[in-house]
Parts: sequence; structure tokens; C-alpha cells
Amino acid sequence: MKVEKNARVAFQGERGAFSEEAAVELLGEEIVLVPRPTFDATFAAVGEGLADYVVTPIENTLAGSIHRAFDLLVGSELNIIGEVVIPIGMNLIAQPGTTFERVAVVESHPMALAQCERFFSANPRWKKVVAEDTAGSVRHVLQGSDPSRAAIAGRRAAQIYGGVILREHIEDAPENYTRFWCLSRASNGMEGANKLSLVFQLAHVPGALLQALEPFGRRSINLMKIESRPVHGRPWEYRFYLDLQVSSNKEAMEAIAELGQRAVNLRILGLYRAAETIPGKQTGNS
Amino acid sequence: MKVEKNARVAFQGERGAFSEEAAVELLGEEIVLVPRPTFDATFAAVGEGLADYVVTPIENTLAGSIHRAFDLLVGSELNIIGEVVIPIGMNLIAQPGTTFERVAVVESHPMALAQCERFFSANPRWKKVVAEDTAGSVRHVLQGSDPSRAAIAGRRAAQIYGGVILREHIEDAPENYTRFWCLSRASNGMEGANKLSLVFQLAHVPGALLQALEPFGRRSINLMKIESRPVHGRPWEYRFYLDLQVSSNKEAMEAIAELGQRAVNLRILGLYRAAETIPGKQTGNS
Repeated sequence: MKVEKNARVAFQGERGAFSEEAAVELLGEEIVLVPRPTFDATFAAVGEGLADYVVTPIENTLAGSIHRAFDLLVGSELNIIGEVVIPIGMNLIAQPGTTFERVAVVESHPMALAQCERFFSANPRWKKVVAEDTAGSVRHVLQGSDPSRAAIAGRRAAQIYGGVILREHIEDAPENYTRFWCLSRASNGMEGANKLSLVFQLAHVPGALLQALEPFGRRSINLMKIESRPVHGRPWEYRFYLDLQVSSNKEAMEAIAELGQRAVNLRILGLYRAAETIPGKQTGNS
Repeated sequence: MKVEKNARVAFQGERGAFSEEAAVELLGEEIVLVPRPTFDATFAAVGEGLADYVVTPIENTLAGSIHRAFDLLVGSELNIIGEVVIPIGMNLIAQPGTTFERVAVVESHPMALAQCERFFSANPRWKKVVAEDTAGSVRHVLQGSDPSRAAIAGRRAAQIYGGVILREHIEDAPENYTRFWCLSRASNGMEGANKLSLVFQLAHVPGALLQALEPFGRRSINLMKIESRPVHGRPWEYRFYLDLQVSSNKEAMEAIAELGQRAVNLRILGLYRAAETIPGKQTGNS
């Protein structure tokens, strides 16, 4: 994806976070990074005129869909304009000059510590220390001067703060990926868009979902993801998120027009190019 | 739900965790609690003969479905035998005798700290300290002797460790609920079961999901939740999770028999009584 030079990109986390990796992967190195402590602050940055784009994780293969990001997207005026999948590889990172044998204390976000349990079992003498954030734990270790201290984070955090990677891929689960979306106010008339994301509500009557999906099934439009959630404050109403594989824009529009007659609060979240490395996907289109 | 006295119940977390609250809500106070540090260790406890039941969170209204718990359930021989929904209320907890005005340092799990952002904005002088776990942060504060230190956790953690609640419901989002399942090796022939959870795989051909759902729609069996995930290592195969509302066991079985001809790896995860307080649900059946 190409964006204007110095485009300002908001993401949740500190410099060096996996979201920053996703932002650079999607938009290139020549962007201005706007790190924010929370998802709410990240999405608010566009409305406040402090960012042009948001890059946000939307789903992790182990932890699931990130509802807060979905909710903020649905409540915003932003559109999905791009997608990327990032492998969540964990690394043991320390100060230059330190050796693996000297490590005694390891700090990181509790989720990252939990994802490296086998590594900790193999090194039982290490003390675990929790930190607010993976990238932040690297910053902390590198700002200090204790050679027995290490952090667990992504590769980019090591680069940013000048740490050395003592061990890579120390995570337990080999298939840990996070899917990120790039959002902007303007929707893009993107060449090569092949994926459509939308959200709608249905009254909870039997068969309502079948009727809603039928216009897509009849046109052989592939469903890539479906997810339902109860609508808060509206008992027995459900919100559905769909990702569809689009080969013909005209057919997709016709199907959506039919869906619009059967659903309420239908919103097109974006028409964009699917990530090229979806976990488990054959690399036929590389 | 009634279980034998001294039934051993494994859950992820420390004593006082929200999972413990769910376990007691589901199975009563006369159970033996088997806390485990991770989901993997929690599920393993049954196979190791150290627990009779597992109580596990399966979905949070803000954070989404907990895929790791689903994956462990699907890979296990356990069945869902009960369900409960717990409101995730956050409390500021300190040592007896402390006042709100004396608090200077607040510790908790990063997720809990992030969920109380407005509270921290209103008290900007406080120092935040991250901890591995909400209940563990209460234990830590109560084991120490510093009256300026407080923790953020559920009500039960305050009770267990003898803390006082200085402020309750300090969480930003009012609708924060977690759904828990109770699992056991034996499936229960439960009276009053009204919910069915199942998982199956479909080849990714257009319309496959429509065909799979059609036996339920035709019988007016209500879909309460649907979720899809790519099957790892099987490109373009998808696994679907369904929660169905069951009023007639015979009809449900007929629909499942039809589904079995259209799907592979069909597994009934459980037939059980739905939680009585689903967020947003009318309390018509109380």
C-alpha cells in the first residue's frame, strides 16, 4: 500500500510494538508513528486531527477477535483500507555484551510471559517480572545497566532500543499470528481489492441468518469469517461480522443490496486487499 | 448445578480469581479449588487425576472469545455441563484501616489497569504497578504492610485475602461480562438443558455454511452464537462453533444427524442449561 510521505499513523502500544511492525509492513518506513496507550486513545487520535491512519490488531489466532477494536471501528467513521498478518514471534532480548548464561531476571507483559512457559520451564532459576507492555519491557532493560536482566518482545523492539536477541522464537505455540487492519477516513478505490468486511444486525428469529447469508451463497461468494455478538441493551438482537471473498464487485453489490432488505444497521466496513499471508493459507498468490 | 461434596475444580488463576467466582456460582461453596497458572495446566489437571471439573472462561464481552480454551476443549474428552455469566466488576482494594486518600500506588494485571483508565485519569498522582494477575495483586498488597498500596480486582479476592474495598465498579465499560463453562468427563443427562454447543469443519466451498445451517433453520432452531476459524495446517478448511437454543431434543438430534452428512469432525461439545443472566437478555425465565 502506498500512502503520502509523513502520513501520521496511530497505534496502540509503545514504540517497537507488534502494531508498529504491522504499520510499517502496511505503509512503509516513511510514516510518522503516533503511539497511544489504549485502543480508545488510538481511535480518538484521528478525530482529534493528530493522525491520518489507525493500524489496529483485530484478531489473534490464540486469543481471538479483539472486540474493543471492532466496537470502536463500528462506532467510528473509519474504513478498512488494508490488512496484514504478522507472526507473533517472541525473543529474549538483553543489553549488548550480555550472554544467555548471565540472564537471571526476565520481564515482559504477562501474556508474553505466559506464551513462553516451556522456555521458562527449561530455565527454572529465572525470576519473572511483569511489565505493562512487551516493547516497554525492552526499553526498560536497555535503559538500565543490569546485564542479568532480559525482556521478551518482538524483533522490532530489539532494533528500536538497541537490544541484542539472545534467543528467538521462544514462544510455546508455533502458530501465533495477529491480523491487523489499516483504517482511514477516506475509503480507497483500491486496485485489486478482493475482500469485503461488513457488519449488520438481525432480529433473533429462527432462520434470520440463513436468509441474510443466502444472497451470498446463491452467488457463490465465499465466506471467510463469520462472528456473532449479542447487541448490548437490545435483548435477542445479534450483530454479525462477515468477511467475504470478492471476485466481482458488481455481484457483491447486488448481494449487499439484497442483504440490506433483510438486515438493519448494515455497514460496509471496507473493501480491501486481503493479507497475503493468512495463517494456513496456501501461498498461491504470492 | 449440584455436584458431589469435595468435588475438585480446576481453574486458571490464583485463589480469588473471577474463575473461582464462576466455579462457586456454578458448583457451590463446598468444592475443592484447584488453581492452576495456565489454561493448559488447568485442562491437564483432569487427565492427571487431580481435578474432577474444569471451570473456564470462554468469552468476554470486551475481549472476545478465548480461543485457547476452545482449542483445549475440542482437543480434550471433556463436555460442557453448565454455564454462568459473571459481571467483571473492578474494585479498589487495600489493607483494613487504609483510606482512599492515603492510596498512592495501585497494582493489578495490565488488562485490569487498562479497564479503569477513567478512574486513573481522575487520580493522576497514583503510580500504576503491573502484576501477573488481579487476585494475586490483592494477595501481594495484603501480605505487605504499606497502607498507601492498593490493588484492583474482583470482590471475591478482597474477601479471600481480607482486604477492604475502597471503591467499587471503577471499570470504564459498564457492560463487561465473562461467560464461563463448567466441563467434566461425564456428560450430564441434565434436566432442563436448553442449549447445545457443537463444532464441525467444512471444506471452503461457497454455500457450504448455508447447507450446514439449513437443517437448523428449517426446524426453527435458534442460533445463539456462530464463530468461524481457519483450521491450522489445513488451508481453506474452516471450523465453526455454534451455540443453539434447544426446545426439543428430538428435533435437535435430527438436525445434527443431517449436519453430520454435510460436515466433518462434528463434535457435540455439550447439552446444558444456558446461563440465566446473559448480558442483554430479558429476565423472562427467572
